[in-house]
Amino acid sequence: MGEESSLLKESTSINDTNMVEEVEERDPESNPLNEPLLKRNRTLSSNPLALVGAKVSYIESLDYEINENDLFKQDWRSRSRTQVLQYIFWKWTLAFLVGLLTGVIATLINLAVENIAGYKFLAVVNFIQKERYLRGFLYFTGINFLLTFVASILCVCFAPTAAGPGIPEIKAYLNGVDTPNMYGATTLFVKIIGSIGAVSAGLDLGKEGPLVHIGSCIASLLGQGGPDNYRIKWRWLRYFNNDRDRRDLITCGASSGVCAAFRAPVGGVLFALEEVATWWRSALLWRTFFSTAVVVVVLRASIELCHKGKCGLFGEGGLIMYDVSDVTVRYNVMDIIPVVIIGVLGGVLGSLYNYLLHKVLRVYNLINQKGKMYKLLLSLSVAIFTSACQYGLPFLAKCTPCDPSLSDVCPTNGRSGNFKQFNCPKGYYNDLATLLLTTNDDAVRNIFSTNTPLEYQPSSIIIFFALYCILGLITFGIAVPSGLFLPIILMGSGYGRLLGILMGPHTNIDQGLFAVLGAASLMAGSMRMTVSLCVIFLELTNNLLLLPITMIVLLIAKTVGDSFNPSIYEIILHLKGLPFMDANPEPWMRNLTVGELVDVKPAVVSFKGVEKVANIVNALKNTTHNGFPVMDCGLVPTTGVANEATELHGIILRAHLIQVRKKKWFLKERRRTEEWEVREKFTWVELAEREGNIEDVAVTKEEMEMFVDLHPLTNTTPFTVLESMSVAKAMVLFRQVGLRHMLVVPKYQASGVSPVIGILTRQDLLAYNILTVFPHLAKSKRK
Amino acid sequence: MGEESSLLKESTSINDTNMVEEVEERDPESNPLNEPLLKRNRTLSSNPLALVGAKVSYIESLDYEINENDLFKQDWRSRSRTQVLQYIFWKWTLAFLVGLLTGVIATLINLAVENIAGYKFLAVVNFIQKERYLRGFLYFTGINFLLTFVASILCVCFAPTAAGPGIPEIKAYLNGVDTPNMYGATTLFVKIIGSIGAVSAGLDLGKEGPLVHIGSCIASLLGQGGPDNYRIKWRWLRYFNNDRDRRDLITCGASSGVCAAFRAPVGGVLFALEEVATWWRSALLWRTFFSTAVVVVVLRASIELCHKGKCGLFGEGGLIMYDVSDVTVRYNVMDIIPVVIIGVLGGVLGSLYNYLLHKVLRVYNLINQKGKMYKLLLSLSVAIFTSACQYGLPFLAKCTPCDPSLSDVCPTNGRSGNFKQFNCPKGYYNDLATLLLTTNDDAVRNIFSTNTPLEYQPSSIIIFFALYCILGLITFGIAVPSGLFLPIILMGSGYGRLLGILMGPHTNIDQGLFAVLGAASLMAGSMRMTVSLCVIFLELTNNLLLLPITMIVLLIAKTVGDSFNPSIYEIILHLKGLPFMDANPEPWMRNLTVGELVDVKPAVVSFKGVEKVANIVNALKNTTHNGFPVMDCGLVPTTGVANEATELHGIILRAHLIQVRKKKWFLKERRRTEEWEVREKFTWVELAEREGNIEDVAVTKEEMEMFVDLHPLTNTTPFTVLESMSVAKAMVLFRQVGLRHMLVVPKYQASGVSPVIGILTRQDLLAYNILTVFPHLAKSKRK
Repeated sequence: MGEESSLLKESTSINDTNMVEEVEERDPESNPLNEPLLKRNRTLSSNPLALVGAKVSYIESLDYEINENDLFKQDWRSRSRTQVLQYIFWKWTLAFLVGLLTGVIATLINLAVENIAGYKFLAVVNFIQKERYLRGFLYFTGINFLLTFVASILCVCFAPTAAGPGIPEIKAYLNGVDTPNMYGATTLFVKIIGSIGAVSAGLDLGKEGPLVHIGSCIASLLGQGGPDNYRIKWRWLRYFNNDRDRRDLITCGASSGVCAAFRAPVGGVLFALEEVATWWRSALLWRTFFSTAVVVVVLRASIELCHKGKCGLFGEGGLIMYDVSDVTVRYNVMDIIPVVIIGVLGGVLGSLYNYLLHKVLRVYNLINQKGKMYKLLLSLSVAIFTSACQYGLPFLAKCTPCDPSLSDVCPTNGRSGNFKQFNCPKGYYNDLATLLLTTNDDAVRNIFSTNTPLEYQPSSIIIFFALYCILGLITFGIAVPSGLFLPIILMGSGYGRLLGILMGPHTNIDQGLFAVLGAASLMAGSMRMTVSLCVIFLELTNNLLLLPITMIVLLIAKTVGDSFNPSIYEIILHLKGLPFMDANPEPWMRNLTVGELVDVKPAVVSFKGVEKVANIVNALKNTTHNGFPVMDCGLVPTTGVANEATELHGIILRAHLIQVRKKKWFLKERRRTEEWEVREKFTWVELAEREGNIEDVAVTKEEMEMFVDLHPLTNTTPFTVLESMSVAKAMVLFRQVGLRHMLVVPKYQASGVSPVIGILTRQDLLAYNILTVFPHLAKSKRK
Repeated sequence: MGEESSLLKESTSINDTNMVEEVEERDPESNPLNEPLLKRNRTLSSNPLALVGAKVSYIESLDYEINENDLFKQDWRSRSRTQVLQYIFWKWTLAFLVGLLTGVIATLINLAVENIAGYKFLAVVNFIQKERYLRGFLYFTGINFLLTFVASILCVCFAPTAAGPGIPEIKAYLNGVDTPNMYGATTLFVKIIGSIGAVSAGLDLGKEGPLVHIGSCIASLLGQGGPDNYRIKWRWLRYFNNDRDRRDLITCGASSGVCAAFRAPVGGVLFALEEVATWWRSALLWRTFFSTAVVVVVLRASIELCHKGKCGLFGEGGLIMYDVSDVTVRYNVMDIIPVVIIGVLGGVLGSLYNYLLHKVLRVYNLINQKGKMYKLLLSLSVAIFTSACQYGLPFLAKCTPCDPSLSDVCPTNGRSGNFKQFNCPKGYYNDLATLLLTTNDDAVRNIFSTNTPLEYQPSSIIIFFALYCILGLITFGIAVPSGLFLPIILMGSGYGRLLGILMGPHTNIDQGLFAVLGAASLMAGSMRMTVSLCVIFLELTNNLLLLPITMIVLLIAKTVGDSFNPSIYEIILHLKGLPFMDANPEPWMRNLTVGELVDVKPAVVSFKGVEKVANIVNALKNTTHNGFPVMDCGLVPTTGVANEATELHGIILRAHLIQVRKKKWFLKERRRTEEWEVREKFTWVELAEREGNIEDVAVTKEEMEMFVDLHPLTNTTPFTVLESMSVAKAMVLFRQVGLRHMLVVPKYQASGVSPVIGILTRQDLLAYNILTVFPHLAKSKRK
């Protein structure tokens, strides 16, 4: 092994320490949300000896490339027309099921949240009416504490990956990063219960991000036929046991989640397209669209059912929908000024939020790393702080007399609705209680309310805005399922409405619309999406005439934000250390060739077409490489050239070598096998499954001297680049085609030159990793 | 020349006939819309000798790949921060200008159409009121004849590429096909005037497709600084003188066009994304969105201006917008049945329309090929037939009494509005005249009108539907700018409303909505778009509650349609012979390697790093290849291997060789040049321009014996594939990365083997071309 690859470089002795085992020790619990999943290792090193066999990363790339080995080709050819139709049928059925289940679960979450929070608020209102303020406070805080405790303890003990929104991890997965423990049944369960608990507890977080994760979990579980230990082994499911089809399903799931969160089917598809997915095909556009259509139908059916009052306190308002379609939007050219101001402010505040959240998350990381107890305490203290503010602050507000024309809705004492009475006498309402002592959904609905120009006092809005700025920063990092959409909407609507009050005399735009635009601008300033946000807001507010000004606000806010820092999702990806591959190469990447890059990497470990078992076993043990080139020696067959030639047969995956070892497919003599021999031993389905574990099947000394024919298992069509290729172009190829390994071939054609001079993986092409080895490029970067 | 490439194959003698010249003879007028732009040649041949130097195609690929030669790298490195900012600034400014100009031109077209058609109809109504029916007919037909004549004569004589919608050609351009004469100033002018003429003439065509083409023309002209002969040579414009930036601009233009056509900004972006563009980046999503936002603002401003009555007959209705937002959409579970029926019918009728239109276009091709006179006559006879039907058929309808509650709007005698009086007595209206004797926009508005369940008699709708089926088939292929959207909407709304009348008693859905759904289903059944159509309809109808049923209708119609035939745009692409590269490889492509493909191609013509002038001149003259590999011989420098080695330096473009010849950059001796030498002679800008002409700069006999150093002009980073790569994967690479040439390298490493065994281009990877050489693959296809 390594004979061929050592021709161009000095031969390298393989480090014997068995570092592979460390991969096994990975523990889900030691890998909590806020801890970087990957300690960035220097993949590249100027000293190859030191790094051979070193663990590069816990996280591997996915096999989005089609592994065209003999077995695959055979399977491909033998697929009958019926099987192809069966595959198509199940693909659509799964998309349907993903939509259906996501819709049903979203309904259940909403039902639970509205009922739990509803009864909680009814009780609190009761206490307040009887002027038992302290008892009301204890009751309110106690319930919220309990709910947060349930959500947090589940996340901390059973599924750390269920904390947070999950969107960055899904984004990384669709980029080709195998994020661990993301799509299990436990994660799904914890995410659902935790989300219900955290949202009912009135924490400053939404169920939107979690719903995206829930959709993806459902998709992944459906695709593999159930949870890991209880999988259904139906024959047709084998078609979906590969990374490519799973990717498509998870994209459907993510779209369905967004759709379920905002009742925005087109917005859901666009969100997946703009923010989440890395690759996109027209066929996928259509399938995700189908899933979201199913979700919408389910949601509509559930609303129709609940309309008849059979769902407890879940009424019409249960599913987020801030209808401002009854406003006649009137604006003229001069209204462009407030619109621009909102956009600029949104961009500045959004990037400031990103900056501060980054700092807070790093502090939280330190706290969370100390242990489960600390995580739990952090969550609970945030919950208590939130409850105290929500209950206590409204007492600061003065009571406002109701407008007599609104006497039928003002004041109200129910759990939802505008103009909360709270501690005020009859005929008066407390505007701050209207915003704070309610569910987040209702708070948004109230602050978006139009044609109510005098409802809120500026001081109340300022308190509301300040509180949600603080809560938005301290809540996101705690160990409960939390979405980012709602906190940002709350903050944004606060400053939007405030701006509306200030500008009131100079503009035609309604204050409610100001709040909507403020929310949109802050989202664009922080998340940096445009088209999808625009469509989501369109579908949320149900008002097409808002579209042009929304677009302008979004564009300005994104532009301003981009000039300060990256989007919040990118910041989180970076914090988690996920090797996400950007769409655009850095400019300095044009000045570096892949040849220079592989020069500083350890030498390639390659195999002969028919290789000794001992060599394979050693290579598996002593390296962590996931792909090995397979080469043959001989004469060039097609020409009369008498020279000795080396043939590059392809690349073989570690997973397949492990299968060979497990099944002991060893040959007594050095020979090529027949097709039936390999088909007897392996099926394509087995090989398509991702199996990382190297199980310790003892290989006897005799067996060590035997041979393995690697030809039938080798992917004969790897993607290659010349060594003179620039890193920028190589990166485009890597990302566009979705590779895991890219072979670097020499630009020279001569005997004695190895046909492969290196292999590049995702880690090697990340800008950060390259700069650690070639720091001088960083300088040219700033030029 | 060809020394290296002939090592693996027999050396090939170059055919001396100067076939390159034929490319020059290409005449815009000999290349009309309906004639295949490309006679499919057998690119691949089992007899290489016969094909060397043969003309492969008139149509070349674009250089979407970055040509990383020394000059480019030097230019890239020397770009200062200011220049980069300048580039970004101008990129956005151009996107803004594209939106602005497209919006303005769309407004002008609307203004002209509404006024011309309006005064025409007012005059006709006058004649009819005086019961001078024959004179009215002559007037009506005469005006329409004249308008069609203007539109048609312009298209026939000045810009044949301005006929038709232009969308398929734009789609091909963005796929990487250099469609000729598409984006000139003449084309733009003819398209605008022709579109006004054809639409005012009442022909069954829309201005939607033409607007997309107009937007693209504007974008292209702006990017290159004006029409070909009067270009502004501003310095900053040089950044946009390359195929990549032009592609981005044209995408912006296409989105703006759709947006201007439907006042649908999000729909415009999605249309470009789903239907038109091949590559898509997040950055582009944002820029196109910006352009469409500008268009919407322009349109809104123009409507505001015209509201005050300063635009002649151009009123509110001028810009298409079928507002059905006032309808309270009520539907229950049982309404799914009519929705499914509409979807299925739409799919069947849509694919039937595609099938019949294909047949009609082939017949029209034969007629149009006979000469300009025939083209003109065809257009004019269609115009006369259309006018006769539109004027004559309403006489068949019975007069209907007006509903007394609608007495203020019924009957009407104006140029637009529902309930046309036509030949009826007072208090009565002619429902067929309401649909036929009006502009197409108004016809759609009238048939979409809601809460008018008794307005139309079934017999009138049947006549309307039948007429527009016929007109939709015979109008599209004539030599005027014509869009496909409106004819399909008219047809679809006809059968939708008919279905609504039939189902009336059994459903809650309004007849107007039935018409909308019918139009949507027929568009999905014919054009096979989903998400973008859905959003366009959403923005057109301004009713979000329609969304779920629209989605279901679209999905069903597309599914049904796809099971019969490809989309209408694909059919037109195929008819025009544009080498469009599909997103998905055919299954049988996995069974073929690129090695087998290049084996049947003529041998590669390659150059040495420093090549004799005579060899270059001959190669340029005797082949039509657009890329030549550059190879050097010598020892492998990095290792001590003593073997003779061949180094692949890269690939050089024909255009650059022509520049070398034009500038006579010849060396007396065989030597490598210094960097300053080449920089003195060439600038990157000159090389980036597409210049196909081989100008006959005489090369003296002495010069023939001189040398050229090709190194600095060679793209050193070409994309390569191993000969064992499957065609399916190679095609994915080719399309995803946007290549023009793909080098095939040997999998063997040995002395005496050429480092390049073949070059694959777009034509080689088209399924049709491969099947002509490997017919046996077609059989396995059906398996």
